[in-house]
Amino acid sequence: MRPSGRNLDTIRTISIEPNVTKHAEGSCMISMGDTKVLCTASLEDRTPPFLRNTGLGWVTAEYGMLPRSTNTRMRREAASGKQQGRTVEIQRLIGRALRACVDRSALGERQITIDCDVIQADGGTRCAAITGGWVALRLAVNKLLKAGDVVSDPITEHLAAVSCGIYAGQPVLDLDYAEDSTAGVDGNFILLGTGRLVEVQMSAEGATFSRMEMDQLLNLAEKGVGELIAAQKAAII
Amino acid sequence: MRPSGRNLDTIRTISIEPNVTKHAEGSCMISMGDTKVLCTASLEDRTPPFLRNTGLGWVTAEYGMLPRSTNTRMRREAASGKQQGRTVEIQRLIGRALRACVDRSALGERQITIDCDVIQADGGTRCAAITGGWVALRLAVNKLLKAGDVVSDPITEHLAAVSCGIYAGQPVLDLDYAEDSTAGVDGNFILLGTGRLVEVQMSAEGATFSRMEMDQLLNLAEKGVGELIAAQKAAII
Amino acid sequence: MRPSGRNLDTIRTISIEPNVTKHAEGSCMISMGDTKVLCTASLEDRTPPFLRNTGLGWVTAEYGMLPRSTNTRMRREAASGKQQGRTVEIQRLIGRALRACVDRSALGERQITIDCDVIQADGGTRCAAITGGWVALRLAVNKLLKAGDVVSDPITEHLAAVSCGIYAGQPVLDLDYAEDSTAGVDGNFILLGTGRLVEVQMSAEGATFSRMEMDQLLNLAEKGVGELIAAQKAAII
Amino acid sequence: MRPSGRNLDTIRTISIEPNVTKHAEGSCMISMGDTKVLCTASLEDRTPPFLRNTGLGWVTAEYGMLPRSTNTRMRREAASGKQQGRTVEIQRLIGRALRACVDRSALGERQITIDCDVIQADGGTRCAAITGGWVALRLAVNKLLKAGDVVSDPITEHLAAVSCGIYAGQPVLDLDYAEDSTAGVDGNFILLGTGRLVEVQMSAEGATFSRMEMDQLLNLAEKGVGELIAAQKAAII
Amino acid sequence: MRPSGRNLDTIRTISIEPNVTKHAEGSCMISMGDTKVLCTASLEDRTPPFLRNTGLGWVTAEYGMLPRSTNTRMRREAASGKQQGRTVEIQRLIGRALRACVDRSALGERQITIDCDVIQADGGTRCAAITGGWVALRLAVNKLLKAGDVVSDPITEHLAAVSCGIYAGQPVLDLDYAEDSTAGVDGNFILLGTGRLVEVQMSAEGATFSRMEMDQLLNLAEKGVGELIAAQKAAII
Amino acid sequence: MRPSGRNLDTIRTISIEPNVTKHAEGSCMISMGDTKVLCTASLEDRTPPFLRNTGLGWVTAEYGMLPRSTNTRMRREAASGKQQGRTVEIQRLIGRALRACVDRSALGERQITIDCDVIQADGGTRCAAITGGWVALRLAVNKLLKAGDVVSDPITEHLAAVSCGIYAGQPVLDLDYAEDSTAGVDGNFILLGTGRLVEVQMSAEGATFSRMEMDQLLNLAEKGVGELIAAQKAAII
Repeated sequence: MRPSGRNLDTIRTISIEPNVTKHAEGSCMISMGDTKVLCTASLEDRTPPFLRNTGLGWVTAEYGMLPRSTNTRMRREAASGKQQGRTVEIQRLIGRALRACVDRSALGERQITIDCDVIQADGGTRCAAITGGWVALRLAVNKLLKAGDVVSDPITEHLAAVSCGIYAGQPVLDLDYAEDSTAGVDGNFILLGTGRLVEVQMSAEGATFSRMEMDQLLNLAEKGVGELIAAQKAAII
Repeated sequence: MRPSGRNLDTIRTISIEPNVTKHAEGSCMISMGDTKVLCTASLEDRTPPFLRNTGLGWVTAEYGMLPRSTNTRMRREAASGKQQGRTVEIQRLIGRALRACVDRSALGERQITIDCDVIQADGGTRCAAITGGWVALRLAVNKLLKAGDVVSDPITEHLAAVSCGIYAGQPVLDLDYAEDSTAGVDGNFILLGTGRLVEVQMSAEGATFSRMEMDQLLNLAEKGVGELIAAQKAAII
Repeated sequence: MRPSGRNLDTIRTISIEPNVTKHAEGSCMISMGDTKVLCTASLEDRTPPFLRNTGLGWVTAEYGMLPRSTNTRMRREAASGKQQGRTVEIQRLIGRALRACVDRSALGERQITIDCDVIQADGGTRCAAITGGWVALRLAVNKLLKAGDVVSDPITEHLAAVSCGIYAGQPVLDLDYAEDSTAGVDGNFILLGTGRLVEVQMSAEGATFSRMEMDQLLNLAEKGVGELIAAQKAAII
Repeated sequence: MRPSGRNLDTIRTISIEPNVTKHAEGSCMISMGDTKVLCTASLEDRTPPFLRNTGLGWVTAEYGMLPRSTNTRMRREAASGKQQGRTVEIQRLIGRALRACVDRSALGERQITIDCDVIQADGGTRCAAITGGWVALRLAVNKLLKAGDVVSDPITEHLAAVSCGIYAGQPVLDLDYAEDSTAGVDGNFILLGTGRLVEVQMSAEGATFSRMEMDQLLNLAEKGVGELIAAQKAAII
Repeated sequence: MRPSGRNLDTIRTISIEPNVTKHAEGSCMISMGDTKVLCTASLEDRTPPFLRNTGLGWVTAEYGMLPRSTNTRMRREAASGKQQGRTVEIQRLIGRALRACVDRSALGERQITIDCDVIQADGGTRCAAITGGWVALRLAVNKLLKAGDVVSDPITEHLAAVSCGIYAGQPVLDLDYAEDSTAGVDGNFILLGTGRLVEVQMSAEGATFSRMEMDQLLNLAEKGVGELIAAQKAAII
Repeated sequence: MRPSGRNLDTIRTISIEPNVTKHAEGSCMISMGDTKVLCTASLEDRTPPFLRNTGLGWVTAEYGMLPRSTNTRMRREAASGKQQGRTVEIQRLIGRALRACVDRSALGERQITIDCDVIQADGGTRCAAITGGWVALRLAVNKLLKAGDVVSDPITEHLAAVSCGIYAGQPVLDLDYAEDSTAGVDGNFILLGTGRLVEVQMSAEGATFSRMEMDQLLNLAEKGVGELIAAQKAAII
């Protein structure tokens, strides 16, 4: 019934290739089916002004799509002179999510910027960015630990994100673009490895949903995030 | 236990004054405790370009805060030359929410813009904007109906929004600023009069939540929205 | 003869409600007929860089119109990314005018920002903003005096503004929108309580005026400002 | 008593050199003492959208200062990404003033843009821009008349502008920078050749003025504009 | 003597992987040593306004660097709100160069946009972008030919670019970042497969060069471009 | 054969008038035929941040065209809110070129900004700006030497620029607009007084060139720059 032939609770093929760029302190290329996002972590030994002399670090994120990552070429945001509302929303979400698994005191007065650039889009880019962003962050923090720059591990948990939605009247896991563009209800679920929830964003465009449907989507999300975290573990040995 | 002395499941005093401006097709001033938002509905007999010749109408929203609506003066967005990410997020949310209770085919090729301007802020401005925005929209559509410009009512349901969160370890309804600024977990819940969900945005800054807590917050939201819709009904006789 | 039926030298009904917002150090809602402007004064204990270590304070102003304060919805300046020339002109005028009644040395190294936001427009918004802005300023300075933060009163005089113009060949006082939009000549007059002039801006769009007409307009302005200052005094007991 | 040794009612040496650029339909270099402004008139056979199919033409103006026209280099507005408030105010003034002497119906659906670029600044640049702008406009319109593109002369009057102010307690005509930077009260007066007033902008920074002083300044302005119009006539034979 | 141990006239390892993205009409990933650029060609069936109804097509280019493509993270241009001067220069160069090998009449009223996004930078990104951009263009045009949308091949020649410079007093071919950042003189050479020159940009920062040195650099460029065109041919069978 | 009747190797009439503005430390008006550029040098006793405490000075340039310097009025860059790509390219070129003849250590921690504003354009404005910019720079540095603020002359050489191109199949020197707008190949050549090359920018729009043609253009450039440097010497006695 799904355009891809997947079962309702099957996620797409996941691939996480770590350490793909020579300059970044941490990086990976994450693929969820045809969605490909390059995630890099850049470490700076200073924090934004509002954290100076607090002993706390910061994790932030930026998100972008290459102009032809999509089916029809999008205008380059650098050329149009501003980031779209959607871009700003997504990068705020990624940064907020990743901070949920970071002990900013253990990190110390450092900033880690996670850049998530969509190389190819086929739905679910923000979730892939969070899941891959966690890997880039993990690799950068590993360098800090190895060098002795931080003593206790500032990353407190695994964290990943997956989208779920109601497609053709059925709750489905990990929507691709063909599903996402027609689903009346969909959402993004960010969970820790412990199963606790970090962020839930259910939204409906021209449709609504019941509490029972919400429960079913949460069940799917728990299953999906479990598989994503397994892939994260496999990628970082 | 709450700074305001309210019970965990008590919302603030609601006041909705309809028809407060002379120019707008619909308007109200909504207060939720010390939060005051002016909502106006502006009607145009044309839609955005992507809807031309589709027979469908559009409802959109814009949001702003007066510079001294807050405790410390904020920089005026018109002066800084752009809307902040938070502003863009909120106005996208308001517009999306209101479209969930509109039959855009019954509306016809018209656009209604809901402007939500925060006169005084004390937490929960986006929820107040949605609840008050619905009233402004309702009043503007009533004019269309009265004039015979639309035949069947394009508004399909009541709709309101309320925030809930976990404050000092307890789920609470309708956070004010004193609570909102320290709650680790909070969210916005938008529901129809039927009880169906339109949007759920739970987010945590440096904290997480369980599925049981999520259920408790949904219970609170259902109670709060029920009372808000009663206030909407009382305001428009 | 005037659309409102007023006499040539009659101003509109004035209403000044002080202390209308909870956060600002001083505030009022001023109405001149259907024109309503919310004026707030925000106090900061620092001056702009060019005044550091001079012992002098600063008073500045910002002006905005809510998008649907006007008959037809205007584009939100925050969304269009810049303030229009008209906005910039008006806020420079308000700030310059208010500084004419302030002893900046007695104020000390503080900045007071007057925000004037038009809630409903029906002509004469800049004059209402100056007259109401003076009230907000007065209230904020009263707090400084009461707290002993300033010793001698930095406000040296009452100050108010009124528009006058030539409508249908006759000099008239306090133009409303119906008059303003068709008057070939109109101007703004800012005076102290002593009757001395602070600013005169007579301008003609496609028309001109004689020195005798200018004298008649100045006579009207003196009368109008006298009544406005009486209203200021009544509002702040 | 004046820094330049001029009498109170003496304007600076005026020089108007017409036809200084090869491309513009009309142009002049105007000097008022050390203030030098290049004025060009550019003619287009179309009007702005709001005038389409009205039969009316439009005259507008733009103003700029070369970065080192001033004593200390100013930041280039093109590099800073926006025109300052002062620039916008001045160019709106120039355009509005010039339209006061134009019969827009006789001009027909054409636009003439007057560019006023300050090559060297020593006070009074906006007045020089108006006086020189009129010459550029006159020359461009002469071409239209000569070519038979317009039948009756759209320019109805001579028009010029001069600044006056109160310097060291005395009303003075045509302030240079040394005076302008210390005068508490100064203003710009725009008059037709008939003596009728087009615009009066008296403003005070930290000072005020009486009606008697205003009369004295108007007397000076009438004298000054008379001499400027004589120079305009001499420049266009 | 070169940091990489290469001979003076040896280019870096070239790799051109064609058809790397699913959406673009043509694409490749080009690597020159550690420099990696993703080039995509996007086809539209309309031209920019200035070419409407001329029968001519257009080829244009845009260039960007991912924020962490460089050793130190660069600010994202979309976030800073404008493209830097360097970016604008480079993308104008790429577009101009590619148009030199295109018969725009044979292309017809179509636009092909070449996006060149630097994934990893190690010197010579603009030359890699041109060489790889040609491949993306070639692949997109092949689709047009195959579909019969164009009849005669609009691409008239192979075209590639290489940098040369004077490093440690010696003319060298294909500078990497270690060389580029210290070379006083360097340049970019764009040549056709026929050996004719399309663009030469020699520039010196704090150094100069003789005509003999210029000749030596041209010799190196001819050698390098020959090898690059061989790689292009190998990539598109 | 050339539209102007000049020989293939004849430059236009050069005129360099030094010290044309009262405020700038150095200035000249340079004319190359109908192309007129005002060049000013502004001296500041501080460098950009990246040079603080290095003992080195900086020379930079900005370029602009007056809106009606061209045949058809161009939009004012300050009004459109950004400098075009062409403007940015040109001012980067001017600054880079002038730094090639400056010993930045002898200059000390000072910045000299060369503003080049095109008063009238007829082709070759960037070359005129460099040649005239050198004169403005020379005059400003002379003041420093005279005042004893620098001890040894920071200017190491004369420097000038000229354009050459292939017009109607023939290499020609110093293209005017009539030639420039139709030449398929043209370039800018910047040379020192010693004959060494500083920058060569040959570019072709829809055409290509051979190495022999490149040699011929270099010969013309050497001749032209020689004559320009003679004019520089004549202007500064």
